[in-house]
Amino acid sequence: FDFGFAATPTEEMNGAGNLMDFLDEPFPDVSTYEDFHTIDWLREKSRDTDRHRKITSKSKESLWELIKSLLDAWSGWVVMLLIGLLSGTLAGVIDLAVDWMTDLKEGVCLSAFWYSHEQCCWTSNETTFDDRDKCPQWQKWAELMTGHAEGAGAYVLNYFLYILWALLFSFLAVSLVRVFAPYACGSGIPEIKTILSGFIIRGYLGKWTLLIKTVTLVLAVSSGLSLGKEGPLVHVACCCGNLFCSLFSKYSKNEGKRREVLSAAAAAGVSVAFGAPIGGVLFSLEEVSYYFPLKTLWRSFFAALVAAFTLRSINPFGNSRLVLFYVEYHTPWYMAELVPFILLGVFGGLWGTLFIRANIAWCRRRKTTQLGKYPVLEVIAVTGITALLAYPNPYTRRSTSELISELFNDCGALESSQLCDYVNNPNMSRPVDDIPDRPAGPGVYNALWQLTLALIFKIVITIFTFGMKIPSGLFIPSMAVGAIAGRIVGIAVEQMAYHHHDWIIFKNWCRPGADCVTPGLYAMVGAAACLGGVTRMTVSLVVIMFELTGGLEYIVPLMAAAVTSKWVADAFGKEGIYESHILLNGYPYLDVRDEFTHRTLATDVMRPRRNDPPLAVLTQDSTTVEDVETLIKDTDYNGFPVVVSRESERLIGFVQRRDLTLAISKSTNARQKQDGVVSSSVVYFTEDAPQLPASNPQPLKLRRILNLSPFTVTDHTPMETVVDIFRKLGLRQCLVTRSGRLLGIITKKDVLRHMAQMMNQDPESIMFN
Amino acid sequence: FDFGFAATPTEEMNGAGNLMDFLDEPFPDVSTYEDFHTIDWLREKSRDTDRHRKITSKSKESLWELIKSLLDAWSGWVVMLLIGLLSGTLAGVIDLAVDWMTDLKEGVCLSAFWYSHEQCCWTSNETTFDDRDKCPQWQKWAELMTGHAEGAGAYVLNYFLYILWALLFSFLAVSLVRVFAPYACGSGIPEIKTILSGFIIRGYLGKWTLLIKTVTLVLAVSSGLSLGKEGPLVHVACCCGNLFCSLFSKYSKNEGKRREVLSAAAAAGVSVAFGAPIGGVLFSLEEVSYYFPLKTLWRSFFAALVAAFTLRSINPFGNSRLVLFYVEYHTPWYMAELVPFILLGVFGGLWGTLFIRANIAWCRRRKTTQLGKYPVLEVIAVTGITALLAYPNPYTRRSTSELISELFNDCGALESSQLCDYVNNPNMSRPVDDIPDRPAGPGVYNALWQLTLALIFKIVITIFTFGMKIPSGLFIPSMAVGAIAGRIVGIAVEQMAYHHHDWIIFKNWCRPGADCVTPGLYAMVGAAACLGGVTRMTVSLVVIMFELTGGLEYIVPLMAAAVTSKWVADAFGKEGIYESHILLNGYPYLDVRDEFTHRTLATDVMRPRRNDPPLAVLTQDSTTVEDVETLIKDTDYNGFPVVVSRESERLIGFVQRRDLTLAISKSTNARQKQDGVVSSSVVYFTEDAPQLPASNPQPLKLRRILNLSPFTVTDHTPMETVVDIFRKLGLRQCLVTRSGRLLGIITKKDVLRHMAQMMNQDPESIMFN
Repeated sequence: FDFGFAATPTEEMNGAGNLMDFLDEPFPDVSTYEDFHTIDWLREKSRDTDRHRKITSKSKESLWELIKSLLDAWSGWVVMLLIGLLSGTLAGVIDLAVDWMTDLKEGVCLSAFWYSHEQCCWTSNETTFDDRDKCPQWQKWAELMTGHAEGAGAYVLNYFLYILWALLFSFLAVSLVRVFAPYACGSGIPEIKTILSGFIIRGYLGKWTLLIKTVTLVLAVSSGLSLGKEGPLVHVACCCGNLFCSLFSKYSKNEGKRREVLSAAAAAGVSVAFGAPIGGVLFSLEEVSYYFPLKTLWRSFFAALVAAFTLRSINPFGNSRLVLFYVEYHTPWYMAELVPFILLGVFGGLWGTLFIRANIAWCRRRKTTQLGKYPVLEVIAVTGITALLAYPNPYTRRSTSELISELFNDCGALESSQLCDYVNNPNMSRPVDDIPDRPAGPGVYNALWQLTLALIFKIVITIFTFGMKIPSGLFIPSMAVGAIAGRIVGIAVEQMAYHHHDWIIFKNWCRPGADCVTPGLYAMVGAAACLGGVTRMTVSLVVIMFELTGGLEYIVPLMAAAVTSKWVADAFGKEGIYESHILLNGYPYLDVRDEFTHRTLATDVMRPRRNDPPLAVLTQDSTTVEDVETLIKDTDYNGFPVVVSRESERLIGFVQRRDLTLAISKSTNARQKQDGVVSSSVVYFTEDAPQLPASNPQPLKLRRILNLSPFTVTDHTPMETVVDIFRKLGLRQCLVTRSGRLLGIITKKDVLRHMAQMMNQDPESIMFN
Repeated sequence: FDFGFAATPTEEMNGAGNLMDFLDEPFPDVSTYEDFHTIDWLREKSRDTDRHRKITSKSKESLWELIKSLLDAWSGWVVMLLIGLLSGTLAGVIDLAVDWMTDLKEGVCLSAFWYSHEQCCWTSNETTFDDRDKCPQWQKWAELMTGHAEGAGAYVLNYFLYILWALLFSFLAVSLVRVFAPYACGSGIPEIKTILSGFIIRGYLGKWTLLIKTVTLVLAVSSGLSLGKEGPLVHVACCCGNLFCSLFSKYSKNEGKRREVLSAAAAAGVSVAFGAPIGGVLFSLEEVSYYFPLKTLWRSFFAALVAAFTLRSINPFGNSRLVLFYVEYHTPWYMAELVPFILLGVFGGLWGTLFIRANIAWCRRRKTTQLGKYPVLEVIAVTGITALLAYPNPYTRRSTSELISELFNDCGALESSQLCDYVNNPNMSRPVDDIPDRPAGPGVYNALWQLTLALIFKIVITIFTFGMKIPSGLFIPSMAVGAIAGRIVGIAVEQMAYHHHDWIIFKNWCRPGADCVTPGLYAMVGAAACLGGVTRMTVSLVVIMFELTGGLEYIVPLMAAAVTSKWVADAFGKEGIYESHILLNGYPYLDVRDEFTHRTLATDVMRPRRNDPPLAVLTQDSTTVEDVETLIKDTDYNGFPVVVSRESERLIGFVQRRDLTLAISKSTNARQKQDGVVSSSVVYFTEDAPQLPASNPQPLKLRRILNLSPFTVTDHTPMETVVDIFRKLGLRQCLVTRSGRLLGIITKKDVLRHMAQMMNQDPESIMFN
């Protein structure tokens, strides 16, 4: 029996017991909450405690029940294990597929068409270390089709086919999303944040969404658009979580418990996106989750671990490492370098602000104008432009992860990249690891130009890409922008230090012939700064960055950049990209971070307002079944307060609409159980119904469905306290009283509307049932 | 004006305004909360919002006010910076002093007596790399005093002086603690947890405690007792936090805000204890803090960063690294090794359980028997025994951190330690980094025996050491136990793998001549397992471990061991060592992790009980000043509910004892403001007092001190909900009503007592005013 804290457990359980058993999930399709409703956390928690108590007391009865109770206790860990395994596997498959399809845009492996470029040349024996990218088995399309590998004709043909493949992939992606699972688009993180805060969006984490999002994510990333796979992977992991919840009634029937699992699944998602299990847990804690008890912390940790481990076993990057961009720098950083690091932080903050404003403006335009009606066309157009502009520049042609990886890298002696084309000192005979600063060669200057163009291109195109109707993550594009900017700054500082050893700022730490500046580190710091500016993560960001790169020594530069970036971005607006999208879509999200500082009182927010009709209430012993039926028909409230009488208005409890509907419905035997109940029967919420003469219709006793401990505040309670209570206790509604008399009701929607009003936003924009 | 959410801000502010300004902190020594009281989090938060609103509205008035408001907004970061700087500096000084004094027990540096052994031999030019521990400047006491460095006589003299120094240090430590700052003893973490949960312990974080704890910590660690400096460093950092709070009225006058600073300070403490800033933040979140909003997460992060950075600048370990025990292993780990890792986890869990039970039993004995009356003698005795038994064994003679460091180390080619005395293959000509598994030499077998003895010694002596009246941390001893056990297991597995290559479990991953098993990794995993078993940390533990060692690749083994250890330990009892000590000392700590699953109702817990006298209430318009005076004199409640009348008992508000006392006190001009108030005057809590004839005494209007939004629950509310509300909203008391009528009151103490009763503990053991 699960009516929250409605029932007084010490009272007699006979008589009404049958009714209660019956009311508990009477039809599978009558769920406790409807779509786009908000859950009542206290009630869900209470239901779970009841369930737990029942199992514990039963477990003493027989061995079988004991085993069942043990299974129940372990089901949380089992779900975590399953989530970890499935999301790790999916992430591995996605990585492999993306690798292959990204390379498919350029060419094909003759020995086995399902090999990516790298795999193709691995299996070839004819390559040396220097030529590991070139092997006869791998042929570009032009070479395969015309036999000419070089020349303008081949270039144009390759260019053309590159665009064609990109268009094909993105067309497939957007079509699949539109036809099969509209919820599969976007990054999914704003919606998951909203769901975790207690909102119900049916189907958002369903099986179809899981399948389609996985497939379209591969297509979208492979198409070369400026997007990443991290946000969507969080969505995919949450879909896995939701899927496995349905295996255990403990989770499938309790929306509160389900959200604990989803929080852990989000951690697993980030864990596989970056190979960063601890960063994933912190991301879930800092950015996504709403209710995150310590128990969930441990479980998230486990799920993230299993997921990362599964991914490592699949080994999609072929290097047995968990980390995506492994770096190893050979020099420490110096105090004076904090200045450019902090400047990168400022850049990150500014980019974050710019991106959020521009992207939100564009998305709003999409929502309000004709543009939104042609999502397929939009995707095709953006893909076409992206492919057209990206191909000529080697830094944008390759996949964004490869680009980031190259930018993070320190220039070793064996590095063949253009970025490492320094003028070598022929007399040098040092060990390879310790190369002193050198003047930049023509390759570096060339690379700087191309990187600048790539930076501008990435900045602009990302604004238009994020928010389209395909799966798209924001982490990788943001990091790319930051890494490019960082590398440019890094090379500038390095060259300055080389050419001006005598400047006072370099004198102390940069002797001639020393290796002082590592441009790769600047790229890493820049990436952290830009990611921080967009998402406003701090601790989780730094942890992800050093799990991503293995650079535990560089915590201070990363922290300095992340904190600066956050400060700068916050100065222009408190919301990160996810909160901005929540606001744009009008999701009913009660942000724990917003401080409510206005001096309004509960009485200003509660309903009924001054000129409204009075509150719809039931009386404890004078409402008839007919009155109740009328009330249910005429209103669409989720529940009704029960008062002693209309005169005294003293509150005695609260009854849920759903319970009331079931209790008085003629078709259920709930009502039939109590003989002789007709429309004119009086509904009693009191402990004992009076003995009526036989001529009167029999009363309907409904005390059992009455919640005797509704949450109340007085009308003088400041709204800041009310908001705090709604946030911390996860209430759905709260009754307002004065000296024990019922005055009105405040629902979560009223709170959200009031907050929107106070922030001069349109209160009607909030999507809510 | 700061009466929480008592005042209705929209009402007229004139008339009573003066009274209010006056009541706000009337005397500096009349604090809001008394010693051993619990704070009201909602009220503190509300006060802060009021203060913030006032500053914001003032800031528009003038440039000076604007600057003041900006300073106020930045004061949080300034406090964090100061905490980081001071706690980093103190940690550096402590490290240096401990190094020197630990070596002083064995000998002295002739060139400069303030050099530690290591520093002494650094400055010497006469040493080679192999002999870096032996240099002529460093002389053992026997050599210095008798001229003989070797021989039985010298050994005995050194032994004797070692014990003497240890006794001197510990005697000084315990005497200083007893005379100057009794709060400086112990690890401090249980008390800090209690303080952070909202309890007031005056002087616990005072200046004297800071000074004495810093000094005695050095003495206690140097004396060679089986204790660490981590817990005390958290206490020291919190003292720093409290010190800097007093600089800003924002924090010094608001107990809620102060606790946010203290949470961050705890993070800084762990950050400097281990050089693990992220681990510190997570430790504060997972283990210490009670209320940890995201804002505190960012600030903690900053404080921990500054502290770690300051420590690095002081560079006490002389290696420019943040990490305490830097390790670098050259081989990955294999799936099959998870079995011994999980076994180490089981060992850690068992050790945790054993330690907690034995230590609590011993501490209880100390509390209840004569033993507790001789703390100095106890410390002297334990120090004597420790020194006596520790000196002969090389693994216990050295400081525990050095021991852990050696156990974590992988055996390189240059290692001179006994633990690395393997039989070398003379034909081997591989690079030094990749030494295959070899058979153990006599040194290793010898070391194994000594390690086993050291393990038993550490296990036993730590039980008696933790809880004595000197500063003592538990991290390092726990880690030492685990590291010893882990290294033993590691060597066993290694030798097994070497001698039985053909066994099915080794066949797949351990070919002859390969380097398969790294015993140092086992030591690391064992240390994590034991630390986890004792403290029940999980995520923070793993993060600390990999920040401590730089071993990001070994997350999976560490996680597996930590989770196993927690499961095993939890099976025997839910409380970690800190919770157990809180329970032992009867601190009123409302653990967020405990689930309250009993089916009691608010009506079972509220006061008055069935046979008690009725609740002490005030009526809104019929109590006289004399009645109030009597009520205040006769009772010691912290506040009184105000009802409409004794007949209707409808609740209208709650008034704090302190406010009431001040309002009716003759000596304050609060009462004089309202002319003609005498003992027979009626106290009015209504909005308007009636116009009385001049002959009647003038009424005293006190609506302003009335909290019009007291927190209420109904008598039918299940206690699990009430406990949840107390936890999440941080209430101090809650009124119980039925249909608007006041029935009773539940205070935090009632809740704690009830919970103790339900767990069959003595409810009277809870320390509480």
